[in-house]
Amino acid sequence: MTKLSGFIYDTALRRFRPGTVSFGERIEELSFGAASSSLYIVPGFIDSHMHIESSMLTPTSFSEAAVQYGTTTILSDCHEITNAEGAEGLVRFMDSPVVNHTFYALPSSVPSTGLETSNGRIDSEETHLLAKDRRIIALGEVMNAHDLFSSGDNRTKRIIKAFREERPECPLEGHCPRFSGPDLDNFLSSGVDSDHTEQTADSMLEKLSKGMFIQLQYKSLRKDIIDSLRPEHDGHFAFVTDDVLPDVLMEEGHLSRVMRKAMDLGMDAGRVIYASTWSPAVRLRLFDRGWIAPGKLADIVVLSDLGKLTVEEVYVAGSRVYRKGIRQSVSHRTRSFPPSVQRMPVREEDFLLKAHRPGHQAITAIGHRVDSTMTERVNVEVDAGDDLVIRESSVNIVAAVERYGHGNPVIPLPLVNGLKRRGAICSSWAHDSHNLLVLSTDASLAARAVNLVIQAQGGIACVDDSGEFLVHLPYAGIVSDEPASGLAPKVSRVRHWLRDHGYEAGDEIMSFAVLALPVSPDVKVSDLGLVDVRAGKLIDWRTS
Amino acid sequence: MTKLSGFIYDTALRRFRPGTVSFGERIEELSFGAASSSLYIVPGFIDSHMHIESSMLTPTSFSEAAVQYGTTTILSDCHEITNAEGAEGLVRFMDSPVVNHTFYALPSSVPSTGLETSNGRIDSEETHLLAKDRRIIALGEVMNAHDLFSSGDNRTKRIIKAFREERPECPLEGHCPRFSGPDLDNFLSSGVDSDHTEQTADSMLEKLSKGMFIQLQYKSLRKDIIDSLRPEHDGHFAFVTDDVLPDVLMEEGHLSRVMRKAMDLGMDAGRVIYASTWSPAVRLRLFDRGWIAPGKLADIVVLSDLGKLTVEEVYVAGSRVYRKGIRQSVSHRTRSFPPSVQRMPVREEDFLLKAHRPGHQAITAIGHRVDSTMTERVNVEVDAGDDLVIRESSVNIVAAVERYGHGNPVIPLPLVNGLKRRGAICSSWAHDSHNLLVLSTDASLAARAVNLVIQAQGGIACVDDSGEFLVHLPYAGIVSDEPASGLAPKVSRVRHWLRDHGYEAGDEIMSFAVLALPVSPDVKVSDLGLVDVRAGKLIDWRTS
Repeated sequence: MTKLSGFIYDTALRRFRPGTVSFGERIEELSFGAASSSLYIVPGFIDSHMHIESSMLTPTSFSEAAVQYGTTTILSDCHEITNAEGAEGLVRFMDSPVVNHTFYALPSSVPSTGLETSNGRIDSEETHLLAKDRRIIALGEVMNAHDLFSSGDNRTKRIIKAFREERPECPLEGHCPRFSGPDLDNFLSSGVDSDHTEQTADSMLEKLSKGMFIQLQYKSLRKDIIDSLRPEHDGHFAFVTDDVLPDVLMEEGHLSRVMRKAMDLGMDAGRVIYASTWSPAVRLRLFDRGWIAPGKLADIVVLSDLGKLTVEEVYVAGSRVYRKGIRQSVSHRTRSFPPSVQRMPVREEDFLLKAHRPGHQAITAIGHRVDSTMTERVNVEVDAGDDLVIRESSVNIVAAVERYGHGNPVIPLPLVNGLKRRGAICSSWAHDSHNLLVLSTDASLAARAVNLVIQAQGGIACVDDSGEFLVHLPYAGIVSDEPASGLAPKVSRVRHWLRDHGYEAGDEIMSFAVLALPVSPDVKVSDLGLVDVRAGKLIDWRTS
Repeated sequence: MTKLSGFIYDTALRRFRPGTVSFGERIEELSFGAASSSLYIVPGFIDSHMHIESSMLTPTSFSEAAVQYGTTTILSDCHEITNAEGAEGLVRFMDSPVVNHTFYALPSSVPSTGLETSNGRIDSEETHLLAKDRRIIALGEVMNAHDLFSSGDNRTKRIIKAFREERPECPLEGHCPRFSGPDLDNFLSSGVDSDHTEQTADSMLEKLSKGMFIQLQYKSLRKDIIDSLRPEHDGHFAFVTDDVLPDVLMEEGHLSRVMRKAMDLGMDAGRVIYASTWSPAVRLRLFDRGWIAPGKLADIVVLSDLGKLTVEEVYVAGSRVYRKGIRQSVSHRTRSFPPSVQRMPVREEDFLLKAHRPGHQAITAIGHRVDSTMTERVNVEVDAGDDLVIRESSVNIVAAVERYGHGNPVIPLPLVNGLKRRGAICSSWAHDSHNLLVLSTDASLAARAVNLVIQAQGGIACVDDSGEFLVHLPYAGIVSDEPASGLAPKVSRVRHWLRDHGYEAGDEIMSFAVLALPVSPDVKVSDLGLVDVRAGKLIDWRTS
């Protein structure tokens, strides 16, 4: 039995009181009164919406990293592993040993569209099968509002029906940016009742009043948002991480990073902790945690500095899994994954942009935006030679090289405002289908970068005239089993490479990876060609 | 689709806003803005701890009565029907048609002790069987702290284990009066984490801070309790009814009666409604109700007066089940129950109090208390004749006549401070084992009253020199299927009969019925003799 004394977080009052807590696997005794230390003792942080794969780590490595920042329970919507490796990949993830409590949401949009070649597929049959697994405790973010609103049968409705039949007690997670009024009512009527997208204060308040559970991620936190959240709203919102890249994870923290920002923006620490412990516990129907109280799981974080959330110790079900400065790790590792890139090497010729006709002409290009993960559809004037190849182009070459063994031909596409210095980057971590996304100033470098990733069976390769390097992501081409501390500097190197080559974005790596995501407007890269997202179809870039 | 406009309760803000709501079975659209009426539109009230049998009604009749007062969802711990008729009786209850949402808690203390002859019996085997039924959503109030605290195997622990195996998502309801400090921690460590007993402000605040969900019933509401409940506590407590007798139900209301008292004691109406709708919904893991919000069940109460909670209309899953002045009823009724009283008629001789020896002597009697359902153990001086019969006694005769076919001999016991005018009352509604409890000034009248109940196969009989009457409770001897409006005046007549015969108590009928409850101190009536509750054994009343 372990005993801790200090300032204990009282969930019922949302403030600290001196006291002592004793625990084995569960909390056994709690007394308020004197404290023999000035440490803060709080429930383990609970992240109710996130994607492990965003950190490019296996559940094992991720859990070891997250507990260092106090995150003891996560609900991971493993949308990416399921896209890349199907239901089998999700089960391999779930079988990975972890040092925290890792629960899973059943991905509901795999694949996200039919406009690209994907691998995994979830429909009602897979839902019935996976939902019987008690490690799954929610339906992952439902984002296809078109499906929800249409009257006929469709995959989203079938999946919701199947999931509810199997697990009527579990929540349905949502994704509904910019919805309000009757559209929002319609969305909520499906039973999907959470949202973690960016909010305006007005849209957030409308959603809260209509019973939606609001999940606030780092980028959602602004002064007006924090000021709009009144104490009455406590219990109806939580902080979440959604996506945290490995370098950000190791440099800034996990849920603690979001909590710190909320405090910096003026929210009282007591309320921030409530929204990171008990509120998400209730949302996830995990009533056995999120409170320093007898009978609850002994998931406990000891902090020396409340404002900075400086973690001294972390306990999961009573076992100390982290002590400041000492990383603990599990001895057995993640189950091995099958080979992840089924593709023969590519050649320079595969990446030549060829126009319909020779001469000066206007074409359609993807316009990269620095302020958003959306893109613009732009017209560009180019010159093509007699061989139709577009010459001395002011455009980058971008392509999603299919990697699931179909042998699809490479379809290079033009992009502007991307790399501004000669180089190529290729990644098999490229949402949602995780084909081999390459962005290059040059066809030859593009082929070199893609072939590096094929050879390594997954990862991110950066190539330029001064050399090349690769971040190895051997599991499904999207995650690594090495410790986060080892992976983070490598990923940071990719980020700096992008910056050095003139690629501008809020998050350079995520921005690049979602060039292949055919659900966010305006035009995106698919292995099948250029996707007009709003029209929901492939278009010919060779015309303007 | 139904549309209502008025002042709509906004759960996220705990206040009213003008608006319009449209609904079918579920709420479909909600808009805030103008209102075309001054009516208040609130979620249906949810009672998270109660016992249907306290109202002496079948679930069918009870539901018809409760919706008139706005109660649309109940969790009933049908401890009494299970004591009287076993698991089969509980299933018959669950099969009864209802006009509200009636959920059940699995009774955890049947029988409550081994000190009397009971009928029903719940152990781990019955728990495994019953817990598979989705109409059961909680384990009923665990009250045997002795079992919880002991280290060995016992029935309470077996039942909790079996219930958790079957239904890990469901709450365990508790009963822990006067617990604090390590005892409370120990109680909570079992996973049982609610309490609906009477509280002091201090004990309530300690329980709240230790993660206990507090359920406040009518008698628990005092000014100091209401003043101690800060807005931070919202979500962690709810109003409940526990026991409401039929006459009180029809004269004062159901959960509305408790809510009205909370408002009268100074709690803001917005907070009172939160604690009667969303808070109990979350406690019961019924996330599909308790909020006027799209996607939620259309359980809606329309009020014309907020302070008085004057109900104009009630909707359950979108169907109007009540409109002021018009009682609706279901056409098919509760399943019939088997004969409930297996006992041959009794005789005057059975009720003669016989001492050990003739002459003047001191005996032990049950001392009825007017301020509590507990009793006192008292010594009384009496005279016995040569036939040992105690003469011209200043004591009443009380007995629990076994009615489950065992043919146990009648064991009359002495009681003081009970009936002060000549008469006898017998009831087959007598907690927890519901044997035929009789209280009389006289052996001959006692036999008459008991025989009336045997002949009627259940009910409450009142007999005196001016005549007799009977309230018929044919179902298991404890409930009636007639409308509450028909039963209420009859039960009220019993109450007045008790008062007229000098029986004093806060609730005369309940006070009388629990004379047979062998879990509340000091001395109680069993068919096997006089129970010393604290010692947990039968004692000889013939000695002092």
